[in-house]
Amino acid sequence: MEAASGMSSEGRPIQCKAAVCRRAGEPLVIENVMVAPPMSREARIRITCTSLCHSDITFWRMKDPPGICPRILGHEAVGVVESVGEEVREVEKGDVVVPVFLPECGECEDCRSTKSNLCSTVRFRVSPWMARHESTRFTDMKGNPIYHFLFVSSFSQYTVVDVANLAKIHPSLPPNRACLLSCGVSTGVGAAWVTAAVEAGSTVAIFGLGSIGLAVAEGARLCGAGRIIGVDLNPDKFEIGKKFGVTHFVNSGECGDKPVSQVIKEMTGGGADYCFECVGMASLVHEAYASCRKGWGKTIVVGVDKPGSKLSLSSAEVLHSGKVLTGSLFGGLKPKTHIPILAKRYLDKELQLDDFVTHEIDFEDINRAFDLLLEGQCLRCVIWMNK
Amino acid sequence: MEAASGMSSEGRPIQCKAAVCRRAGEPLVIENVMVAPPMSREARIRITCTSLCHSDITFWRMKDPPGICPRILGHEAVGVVESVGEEVREVEKGDVVVPVFLPECGECEDCRSTKSNLCSTVRFRVSPWMARHESTRFTDMKGNPIYHFLFVSSFSQYTVVDVANLAKIHPSLPPNRACLLSCGVSTGVGAAWVTAAVEAGSTVAIFGLGSIGLAVAEGARLCGAGRIIGVDLNPDKFEIGKKFGVTHFVNSGECGDKPVSQVIKEMTGGGADYCFECVGMASLVHEAYASCRKGWGKTIVVGVDKPGSKLSLSSAEVLHSGKVLTGSLFGGLKPKTHIPILAKRYLDKELQLDDFVTHEIDFEDINRAFDLLLEGQCLRCVIWMNK
Repeated sequence: MEAASGMSSEGRPIQCKAAVCRRAGEPLVIENVMVAPPMSREARIRITCTSLCHSDITFWRMKDPPGICPRILGHEAVGVVESVGEEVREVEKGDVVVPVFLPECGECEDCRSTKSNLCSTVRFRVSPWMARHESTRFTDMKGNPIYHFLFVSSFSQYTVVDVANLAKIHPSLPPNRACLLSCGVSTGVGAAWVTAAVEAGSTVAIFGLGSIGLAVAEGARLCGAGRIIGVDLNPDKFEIGKKFGVTHFVNSGECGDKPVSQVIKEMTGGGADYCFECVGMASLVHEAYASCRKGWGKTIVVGVDKPGSKLSLSSAEVLHSGKVLTGSLFGGLKPKTHIPILAKRYLDKELQLDDFVTHEIDFEDINRAFDLLLEGQCLRCVIWMNK
Repeated sequence: MEAASGMSSEGRPIQCKAAVCRRAGEPLVIENVMVAPPMSREARIRITCTSLCHSDITFWRMKDPPGICPRILGHEAVGVVESVGEEVREVEKGDVVVPVFLPECGECEDCRSTKSNLCSTVRFRVSPWMARHESTRFTDMKGNPIYHFLFVSSFSQYTVVDVANLAKIHPSLPPNRACLLSCGVSTGVGAAWVTAAVEAGSTVAIFGLGSIGLAVAEGARLCGAGRIIGVDLNPDKFEIGKKFGVTHFVNSGECGDKPVSQVIKEMTGGGADYCFECVGMASLVHEAYASCRKGWGKTIVVGVDKPGSKLSLSSAEVLHSGKVLTGSLFGGLKPKTHIPILAKRYLDKELQLDDFVTHEIDFEDINRAFDLLLEGQCLRCVIWMNK
């Protein structure tokens, strides 16, 4: 595929195919692009598989900043290191790596602390550039810049990623499973495992059983939760949820005059120990908070709402209830630290990944992945980038 | 003082003086009242000292429910058990006890858990009745009922309190210090010690240096906090704060265009590890939250705002910041469990209580305590009830 095949491409631009978002909300255009060699602390990756995450769709639709065109979307992937820039010690050519939107430099106060996954050296932000250099590695065939997305841009056969955004994994992991660890599944599993630290025997309520919510269920199941209550408007989600540990279901469209929180309080004798908001609706956070057990209930915000949205809580309830509110970016996981653990748990047949993959397609059909996810029947659609 | 003096009063009503709130916001009326004998699971207490807390003033002013008249206010006190009702094993005649608005039955799921201080058997609420019986033990000399306040009603020489609301302490504690453990000081110290679990060497920011905020500082000092930043509009509070461990001060009226959170972030290189809102302004919670260190910063709501007030946070900040929001009722303390520990720490000269007491007056001057607290020069005014 690449122009440089047959000889070493190292240090030289690679020509390859990428699916470029030329206009917000319109089908991606598969075209030839040039991928520059990695700069200092960067690696160029040959993407094996990528999968489509809802955040890709959110930013694909976005006309105003941080929406920007032309851009290469995609941030859930796995690939092989083609070459590395200067001062890269963490990975080398041939390593299998999972690129992650969230950086981990490994050296700052946050990376050294067990309490934070928000690297201070390389800050997470929604930027059109590389993580550490305010520049792009992509150009079209006329030499015009094409922008990056979430430091990953995996809808290209080759991409360049900062080493802070790379987690090395064992090559035995199938690529159509490994890519799931790059964002959605890790976020959900981590939210239960690390952010909430769900206790064995406890009760969990999950608002929204999309891929993230199901991954929270899977994480809660691995933590030994006693009851896992799924809340969704779509009753089909209960059967799907059972594969990931969901034990009870509340159809939020059929609660009548009763708030969902009241239904959950009655089911649990006072409220769930942990409530996860996985829809991305600030207004639902209040309902999740109300569904928590007084004294120790934790509400974890996992869903991404529109920029600028506010969440509102009763001041008296916050003061009097003993409940805790927090958020979970990438499930509280440190990419380099935790992704290899999740990979091992998959290989050990503890972590369930297979049932997340409902569709697999080839790169040229990438626009079909958007249709599938929007139709609501798809959990994860894996796209083979270099078949 | 009591009609029954000279012979055992047990089992019979006691006539004594009480300061009755007959009309919202008007001076209390010192009058004779009848205090019925304790019913099952109750004890009648001869109040030695009481002190005035801001919540007394809040409810004294309140015209609408749960404001109600005639009522006996006061909920920060210490006294001696005069007699006990049936089925009381926890205390006996002659015991020195601290009555607390927050019940601890000792047997329910919450009381047995180390994570909650919100008893499920005897629920905390702002009620005009006794904790476990929907009735009052007070009548005026015409036989009309007088209502209770926060299960304590300590502005009476005798009161009746549920055993769930009593913590027994060592009699060697001076009563004009012991009464402080009944509400405000314990709330502040506990917020740092139990709710936040402030780590040694960490940085703490306290919004509002009234008695509660100063008690938070004292608690943070006992936990070994490295820096304790007081935030107040009144610059005199820095000198006062130093007695309780405050090491740095931000005059929130002199930050110019800079938000206080920006000033604190610059002082601390990114934000405080713990932020306490002790004013009772929902809008200030947002500023406290913004002042916290990303990754692990905890915001603890300690101040009581008006009923119905809402606090608002940026949905993206909650999701992306890794920060935690929680509230602290009675500092997360279990009255029976933790008050004796605080009492011992005072006797061991670790916990500082003396400097909280800025005024001491006799019962007949009780209305002066309201003036003193409203004038802003008073931390705690102790009222001797049975001199």
